[in-house]
Amino acid sequence: MNIDKLFESVSSKGHVCVGLDTAVEYVPPLEREKAKNDAEAVLAFNKALIESTYDVCACYKVQIAYYEEMGLEGLKAFSETLKYIRAKGCLAISDIKRGDIADTAVRYAKAHFGGDFETDFVTLNPYLGMDSIEPWLEEAEKKGKGAFILMRTSNKGSQDFQYLNLSGNENKQENSGGSHLDDCSSSRLYHKVGEKMSALAQDHLGAHGYGAFGAVIGCTQREEAALIRQKYPNLFFLIPGYGAQGGGADDVTLLLREKNGGIVNASRSIITAWKAVPGKVIDNEFAAAAARKTTVKMRDEIYGAIK
Amino acid sequence: MNIDKLFESVSSKGHVCVGLDTAVEYVPPLEREKAKNDAEAVLAFNKALIESTYDVCACYKVQIAYYEEMGLEGLKAFSETLKYIRAKGCLAISDIKRGDIADTAVRYAKAHFGGDFETDFVTLNPYLGMDSIEPWLEEAEKKGKGAFILMRTSNKGSQDFQYLNLSGNENKQENSGGSHLDDCSSSRLYHKVGEKMSALAQDHLGAHGYGAFGAVIGCTQREEAALIRQKYPNLFFLIPGYGAQGGGADDVTLLLREKNGGIVNASRSIITAWKAVPGKVIDNEFAAAAARKTTVKMRDEIYGAIK
Repeated sequence: MNIDKLFESVSSKGHVCVGLDTAVEYVPPLEREKAKNDAEAVLAFNKALIESTYDVCACYKVQIAYYEEMGLEGLKAFSETLKYIRAKGCLAISDIKRGDIADTAVRYAKAHFGGDFETDFVTLNPYLGMDSIEPWLEEAEKKGKGAFILMRTSNKGSQDFQYLNLSGNENKQENSGGSHLDDCSSSRLYHKVGEKMSALAQDHLGAHGYGAFGAVIGCTQREEAALIRQKYPNLFFLIPGYGAQGGGADDVTLLLREKNGGIVNASRSIITAWKAVPGKVIDNEFAAAAARKTTVKMRDEIYGAIK
Repeated sequence: MNIDKLFESVSSKGHVCVGLDTAVEYVPPLEREKAKNDAEAVLAFNKALIESTYDVCACYKVQIAYYEEMGLEGLKAFSETLKYIRAKGCLAISDIKRGDIADTAVRYAKAHFGGDFETDFVTLNPYLGMDSIEPWLEEAEKKGKGAFILMRTSNKGSQDFQYLNLSGNENKQENSGGSHLDDCSSSRLYHKVGEKMSALAQDHLGAHGYGAFGAVIGCTQREEAALIRQKYPNLFFLIPGYGAQGGGADDVTLLLREKNGGIVNASRSIITAWKAVPGKVIDNEFAAAAARKTTVKMRDEIYGAIK
């Protein structure tokens, strides 16, 4: 099962998930000029980034929007990037946030668990309900694939719906503590998603105690993070929002369990690290070395916060 | 604005939205054998369907999952299908259910409001919050594009989250009536989505009183439908679930306003209508004629229920 492989990858290489949200403007200009088109420039840059970081990160997350923006050529680069990651023996997460039901969900699962876009994990959106998640699980089981379901994100808009409190009838769980009700009430919508996902995970546990399908949990305030980790011990977390969105190593560790159970995504800070180097003509090799340095620094920050 | 064009299209051609959820097994076997590959078979079939129905339907909805399943070649057929619809002067809805924030949302909007995948409307998922919707609106305004946001769907799983009741604090609106609280309470999550969408629509109204961004509302029970229509007069509705998922013409009309304000999607019943004709070797032309007949029948059923 890929979730077991991910656990083992975290154990041996740390918690960093390198986000290949590679817009063409993140590629060094020198290399952009050399490439036949934007999509080829992105692909060549991605390959350099992967070569330079694969031994110091747990996995890669590839955000499809950045490729879709470039149309059909972009999606070819998306496909080639996934192939390159997997050929290196590394794990790929396709950040596609799909959410559709029945036959449509099965079509999507076939599209991303095999064929041109074959990946190891996908991200999914739960709004349509559990019948938009379960068809993926059936397809996933055939090949040991996994998924991360959006649960509690760290963007401002997460307050709009995820954060809403459910009425007493809907909320069968006790609140976690009266005095912190406003901050970390377990009556919020996202906990309903978490409860359903945790029940599903329990039926599909891997060797290390995590379900094949985990959850996306943004870096959040400390008490809330502690409650989330405590309530869902069988969910592996994909944690975005490191650095850029304000979360630090101390925040991340609250979402881990026995030093594992979570990967921490960073994208722009890693893949555009080369931009911080002034006055030098930069090629992919140089940019990839800067990406490695930033990845190692982030990995070690998280190690440091755990110990 | 496309939402005005859609209103006018409904006025002149009826309410049917033909769903081109074209799996290769929906293409007549004779034509599949002739085609170079599955994607080409699907594209040729789509073209025949469009030629045969464009004057009797309001628009087309193209569900990307069916194309993504076929990989890169499939997405080329998706792109060509959209081009063909728009070249005929018809309106295309790309059923992509995207939901992502900030820069990522802008990239997606650029991918679907221009370039290889240019369309007239997209479908969006609100779970991440309004900052996953608003970036699309900015891009949409530049070109008069539109969107439909998932609000209340008709699948079984819609009960899991959309249907949950919010606590008194979150639910500033009065309930619609004590005796029907269980069936059509306005304290449900999906009404919170509707309220936010309706506020957004009010700032971006077209000539016919509908906002550039509407909502996806499945066929549902009668009192609930009436409440939904009454509460959100400025939202144009994309209504799936006709026939196959149990909704009929009478149910649909409850979601209309002054005979307009909604399009009704049907896919399999139209594009596989040819399968009901026994013992005949069928080509695209025959299948397209059967699709037209079914589309006209559905259009007239809805006309009949309105009058």
